[in-house]
Amino acid sequence: MNSDKKKQGLRDFNVASTAICSVGAQGNNLSYFGYDVNTLATQACFDEVAFLLLYSELPDQEALRAFKQRLKKHRNLPDQLKKILRLLPANAKAMDVIRMTCDCLACLTAENSGIKIEHQAEQLLSQMPAALAYWYWYKKNGCQIETQTGQDTIAAHNLSLLLGKPASQLQNKAFDVSMILYAEHELNASTFTARVCASTLADYHAAISAAIASLSGPLHGGANEAALALILSSDSESTAEKAIKQMLQNKQKIMGFGHAVYKQFDPRSEVIKSWARQLALISNQQTLFLMAEKIESVMKTEKRLFPNLDYYSALCYYLLGISAQLYTSLFAFSRLCGWSAHIIEQRRHNVLIRPSASYIGPESRKFKPLSQRNHEALKV
Amino acid sequence: MNSDKKKQGLRDFNVASTAICSVGAQGNNLSYFGYDVNTLATQACFDEVAFLLLYSELPDQEALRAFKQRLKKHRNLPDQLKKILRLLPANAKAMDVIRMTCDCLACLTAENSGIKIEHQAEQLLSQMPAALAYWYWYKKNGCQIETQTGQDTIAAHNLSLLLGKPASQLQNKAFDVSMILYAEHELNASTFTARVCASTLADYHAAISAAIASLSGPLHGGANEAALALILSSDSESTAEKAIKQMLQNKQKIMGFGHAVYKQFDPRSEVIKSWARQLALISNQQTLFLMAEKIESVMKTEKRLFPNLDYYSALCYYLLGISAQLYTSLFAFSRLCGWSAHIIEQRRHNVLIRPSASYIGPESRKFKPLSQRNHEALKV
Repeated sequence: MNSDKKKQGLRDFNVASTAICSVGAQGNNLSYFGYDVNTLATQACFDEVAFLLLYSELPDQEALRAFKQRLKKHRNLPDQLKKILRLLPANAKAMDVIRMTCDCLACLTAENSGIKIEHQAEQLLSQMPAALAYWYWYKKNGCQIETQTGQDTIAAHNLSLLLGKPASQLQNKAFDVSMILYAEHELNASTFTARVCASTLADYHAAISAAIASLSGPLHGGANEAALALILSSDSESTAEKAIKQMLQNKQKIMGFGHAVYKQFDPRSEVIKSWARQLALISNQQTLFLMAEKIESVMKTEKRLFPNLDYYSALCYYLLGISAQLYTSLFAFSRLCGWSAHIIEQRRHNVLIRPSASYIGPESRKFKPLSQRNHEALKV
Repeated sequence: MNSDKKKQGLRDFNVASTAICSVGAQGNNLSYFGYDVNTLATQACFDEVAFLLLYSELPDQEALRAFKQRLKKHRNLPDQLKKILRLLPANAKAMDVIRMTCDCLACLTAENSGIKIEHQAEQLLSQMPAALAYWYWYKKNGCQIETQTGQDTIAAHNLSLLLGKPASQLQNKAFDVSMILYAEHELNASTFTARVCASTLADYHAAISAAIASLSGPLHGGANEAALALILSSDSESTAEKAIKQMLQNKQKIMGFGHAVYKQFDPRSEVIKSWARQLALISNQQTLFLMAEKIESVMKTEKRLFPNLDYYSALCYYLLGISAQLYTSLFAFSRLCGWSAHIIEQRRHNVLIRPSASYIGPESRKFKPLSQRNHEALKV
């Protein structure tokens, strides 16, 4: 990337101070509020991490119990939202459905009634997955699902909603880990969008809606769907090797590799890879895992590129049996915590984010009245 | 604003090159694609300006005729959208309603079917005002309005939808001028939001939805409602003078004055002020205009601050008989053209916008298991 492009992309340009996440550009010190992310992924559950991001401290037992209680209460959906979800078409994009859910909840709730951002975030943490699952199953089989699942953790509850049945303990833990790894990542494009929006003092739902919009792009959250398609496009290690080499020769863009910040490796990748391995083993799909590893090794040898979080997460989601059209929304369900933390931080020391541009257009054009204009070449 | 705050707000920092708008920080050369904005406001109509922003040229007669024809076709709303709008509560915020409309249209239309951004923008130019008016009147008096008005121009059509009846020629022209002045303004927060979102290659509706979210903030589009409230809070020139002086003494924030870019004056303010004067005259509300002028002069003397575009626009909208809850959406209906121009430009030479932050949190914290934590002081 040349220096002009770097500047346009604001790459390595510090636009804020944050106490939320040390992204660790060298790939070895990604942390949330000072806690190493891999320690969290192995020793905590997502509910504790969500609490950490919203309240800047890990919960004790009583705080965690109360937090889960509040989340459970929010698992029900308002009737108007259900009616609206039933009216959406089956071929809508999942990211559009959750953005609409967020905006619909903004319309339905009195935003200015003084509810703390942390509590608004708790509502969305429960209601966004419930709404997506409600829409998904209604369009798939006409069934209006019950959005209370009786599951204790966020991950087990969400997975149960998405699969239409409770998953095993190992599956729940794999999903839980992926949620921890996706929860926060400093000023990525969607989080930056949330902060720009929050800087106008727009309300919480507006900032989250804007973040969802940015996450939907293929250069951001949209990568995990494409990463899965790549893995599934072959049927053995050798065909996978041939296919990826052919793609590289054709200079095709390979999704799931490399990262805007990390240059050596993605610190989250090894953790999620080990879960993909375990899920492949229990579902007797080792070939798929070996194909994914083969593609990884070709990318390393040929392009010196490493898999990012999306690559093995996508494989995990596939092995869990989740429909690929939902993957980017799973990212959103988790990143919602990071977005909320940044909105809270932005509001605390707010400055309107309003950059400038250098003008490269015509200096001054003489106005001709309509009747004197003639644009035969104008393409409309 | 100190230099650290300026940096956080990206103030005067050029993050893009643009041929769309020379914002003219000195207040004397604001132009759209090279055409002086005040020339456009006096000699063109908003339809021509909308065309200019979408296609980078002013239309000739044939192109304008075809453009208007397409816009008229889009004035009808899909039935599902109407059903959804009827389900929203009467106390929803107008900005949430139009953001939801945008998301709903994203769900209802096959975004990836290769429709040009310019044509998607034309759809929203017609459908967003129609949807807001449909919701507004349905909630106000239970009436499902016809969204075809038979009006020829965008301004006359929108005003007719908002008032529930056709307006006079002078009223239409005043509204048209306000739409021209609001149409584009370089990298203001909502336009920057649209560009950050578009930089992830998120689709058109996502980027517009994100921009609407940012515009809803009181430090951005939300200012015009507050500006009106200020003017209406008194009933004579002398009470207005007393009231504003009292507010300044109490160090209250005065909306509608000053600007993030302009330091001397807002080049759009004099134009819209002259329309406010005319509208006050024909509706026999000169006192209101004189009160507004009195507040302006106190702000100049006491704070050396000038009115921005929002100040007299708000008065115009009030004198046109438009409900104050809709003002910020009127801004959006017009700025939609500027947002669209910037999305097109961003996509042409796209670089993902992903800045960094300086980390100021704890360096490394030791993880304690749940059972060993104790946070008596934790506020939830």
